[in-house]
Amino acid sequence: MTDPLPSWNDGLAKGAILDFVAQVTAEHSSTFVPPGDRIATFDNDGTLWCEHPMYGQAFFVFDRIRTLAPQHPEWQAQEPFASVLRGDIKAALAGGEQALMALVMATHAGMTHDEFTAIVQAWLATAKHPQTQRPFTEMVYQPMLELLAYLRANDFKTFIVSGGGVEFMRPWAEQVYGIPPEQVIGSSIKTQFELRDGQPTIVRLPELYFFDDKAGKPVAIQHYIGRRPIAAFGNSDGDLQMLQWATAGAGASLGLIVRHTDGDREFAYDTSPMGRLEQALVEAPQRGWVVVDMKTDWNRIFND
Amino acid sequence: MTDPLPSWNDGLAKGAILDFVAQVTAEHSSTFVPPGDRIATFDNDGTLWCEHPMYGQAFFVFDRIRTLAPQHPEWQAQEPFASVLRGDIKAALAGGEQALMALVMATHAGMTHDEFTAIVQAWLATAKHPQTQRPFTEMVYQPMLELLAYLRANDFKTFIVSGGGVEFMRPWAEQVYGIPPEQVIGSSIKTQFELRDGQPTIVRLPELYFFDDKAGKPVAIQHYIGRRPIAAFGNSDGDLQMLQWATAGAGASLGLIVRHTDGDREFAYDTSPMGRLEQALVEAPQRGWVVVDMKTDWNRIFND
Repeated sequence: MTDPLPSWNDGLAKGAILDFVAQVTAEHSSTFVPPGDRIATFDNDGTLWCEHPMYGQAFFVFDRIRTLAPQHPEWQAQEPFASVLRGDIKAALAGGEQALMALVMATHAGMTHDEFTAIVQAWLATAKHPQTQRPFTEMVYQPMLELLAYLRANDFKTFIVSGGGVEFMRPWAEQVYGIPPEQVIGSSIKTQFELRDGQPTIVRLPELYFFDDKAGKPVAIQHYIGRRPIAAFGNSDGDLQMLQWATAGAGASLGLIVRHTDGDREFAYDTSPMGRLEQALVEAPQRGWVVVDMKTDWNRIFND
Repeated sequence: MTDPLPSWNDGLAKGAILDFVAQVTAEHSSTFVPPGDRIATFDNDGTLWCEHPMYGQAFFVFDRIRTLAPQHPEWQAQEPFASVLRGDIKAALAGGEQALMALVMATHAGMTHDEFTAIVQAWLATAKHPQTQRPFTEMVYQPMLELLAYLRANDFKTFIVSGGGVEFMRPWAEQVYGIPPEQVIGSSIKTQFELRDGQPTIVRLPELYFFDDKAGKPVAIQHYIGRRPIAAFGNSDGDLQMLQWATAGAGASLGLIVRHTDGDREFAYDTSPMGRLEQALVEAPQRGWVVVDMKTDWNRIFND
């Protein structure tokens, strides 16, 4: 048998994954789960791809502000835009959620759906991670790609359930993760249907619709998927409630936390400006969740 | 070759369906569509199952009001509940949208997700259509079941996009239509995640979240599915914008309207208290949509 998870070292984490899949696929066993109910949900930032020093989508926002600045001379004197244009991200984000929303709406709304998708694709084609100089879509974790493929080979349906913007992820999630658009769940802004010269169009509006984080994740899972996952994968307290929900069903389940412990090959942090891993670590042993130590559990992090 | 659509008479409608599927599945042709993009969206009420004289979900609401009445003595003097309890549905609905919402919230909110699903299942197991005395889930159109199966056999992914409540449809859509919960899109109320004695729970709240009708349908399609359907099926002006959206893409597409023309075997109406078919009929020839005449196009309506 070929090892389905070659980038995973033998150990508790890999063993727990293999055991879980064996359990739920063993026909005539009490732990068997029919294929249709094999739902697996994955956080994205920090779980499937790198989130350090900032979310990929945050780099997108700041790049877009700079690109759009010539059309917005008023931004030179208007916060949080002025700080972004001076390169002072910390000052830009000092305005808290309101500042962040202003930046998101200025870059994510006011165009059609098709236009936004083209903007994301064009940005991804040239943008580079500041430390590695690699495209963001190459900063994905090879062990997690193997895990996604392994679960699908065992008739799991794999979903992204991310705090990131759903339409920011959809243009590349299928090519990079093998996850089609209809299995990408994320945060969203309002949209509107319009006939423009008789042509149907979806227009993106500058208003938050749904924030897919923390307690929003199980709500979204029920709302979009309609059944409880039997496996969930996250890396921060933003995934706590998703992990609770996925592992509280009657049958076999798997909760897994990716812990960033490798400062040489990736980054070492539990808490960062992007989020904190604290309560989920406390609950992990109580609820039987697997904690992946990237440094020891993964023999490869990126596909070099 | 076995006829994949035996309940459809030979004619324009059946021919259009067969031609469309042949076009998009013909490899190396200019009209070929890769399997992943073969998205088909179906309205439910009046398109997949009977909506006359009222939506199945409306019968559910009124039955539930009667069932819950002993716990709500105040309803005897409170509209719209008092009218429902007197059996005067017309008077109950005279209060318009506000009355309808009061009835929906009294019957759809205030319980957990699991409790609501059990309530729907118990109701479906005993409720009967008033004219046919058949269970509502047997009031589904046999030609449409064949169409769903035919499309799936040709690698289409079939979705419901209905104005009905998503959690009212999910408990039975897979068994009746072969459509799994994650491919059911509908109207919804707000929900909330709670830990109750440490047990994760989804609670249904008495507040509308999304109304999936008219211009809401293409918005929902983009929001939940993330790509434009190439086939859409409806029966009223509530489906107009979905049909516009699905058939305005660059490649081959199919828009189809089920027209209720058979007063003997089903019901004959374009406009009813449940909705109107008017503008969609006007646009059908302009936009190349197929109009199914139930009386002449279908040799069987229900599976008897």
